[in-house]
Amino acid sequence: MQVYTGNGKGKTTAAFGLALRAIGRGLKVYVIQFIKGGFDYGELYIADKLPNLKLKAFGRGKFVTEKPAEKEDVKLAEEALALAEKVIKSGEYDIVILDEVNVALDLKLIKTEKVVELVKSKPRHVELVLTGRYAPAEIVEIADLVTEMKEIKHPFSKGQQARKGIEY
Amino acid sequence: MQVYTGNGKGKTTAAFGLALRAIGRGLKVYVIQFIKGGFDYGELYIADKLPNLKLKAFGRGKFVTEKPAEKEDVKLAEEALALAEKVIKSGEYDIVILDEVNVALDLKLIKTEKVVELVKSKPRHVELVLTGRYAPAEIVEIADLVTEMKEIKHPFSKGQQARKGIEY
Repeated sequence: MQVYTGNGKGKTTAAFGLALRAIGRGLKVYVIQFIKGGFDYGELYIADKLPNLKLKAFGRGKFVTEKPAEKEDVKLAEEALALAEKVIKSGEYDIVILDEVNVALDLKLIKTEKVVELVKSKPRHVELVLTGRYAPAEIVEIADLVTEMKEIKHPFSKGQQARKGIEY
Repeated sequence: MQVYTGNGKGKTTAAFGLALRAIGRGLKVYVIQFIKGGFDYGELYIADKLPNLKLKAFGRGKFVTEKPAEKEDVKLAEEALALAEKVIKSGEYDIVILDEVNVALDLKLIKTEKVVELVKSKPRHVELVLTGRYAPAEIVEIADLVTEMKEIKHPFSKGQQARKGIEY
């Protein structure tokens, strides 16, 4: 199980790059996006074109940053987790990416114990990838590989706007 | 210009994930891999399937880690840099990824001044992405965005072998 966390760029893209590599090998990949649904992302437009890549996003088109969480956000995160459980346990996908799940955990939209349980009970051949800043200690503890993406420099702090196709 | 450096996993995959996002938007991407050619990578098998992604790898199927560098490695890195110059200056590609170029710089296969010059003279609309550990200070200095991938945990240190489709 792999974790990409930290405040720097490249967490979601690293997961998608991993997906690309796996698809190149004929493996099957399922991406479940927590919090992100409803936004306009470049990734969404490519999934349809790649036969072995499935993507489903759960969210309502706005950034969830508030604690305590709103009911609607909890419901969507629970739906995402339920799908993750089904997909992982089916064993049909070689790689399952839970994009931004760490943020959902940090916001207490879903329980860390549930995700820990899911990781521990996964079929051996299924590679799990968890992304998002604020990965809880319990997740880091059970991960095989953890990378922290550390922001050294960021253009947004110089006032640059996010660009379509590059940042989203 | 973006830099992904550090000793952690996810540098090359972050660049490829960025490529995927861009392709989803109809942008054109060119990936030039320093040092890596001749290896068997999952990424190589997908490039052919994506119309807007071009990939060319320069290397001779072994890891280059020695200083001073061998002549053959210098020659290949210089060829890669020459192609990079041509591709960037043509302005035909929205994103140009120089994968592992930082390692080529660290090994002194090519000169840092040349890459700095290339970055400074690039067309405005071309987004450059430089990956590889040991990014030189001069590169970090002129970058807009720098992320350090920091290894927190790595399964290879527990003796696990690299797996096809996951690690390569």
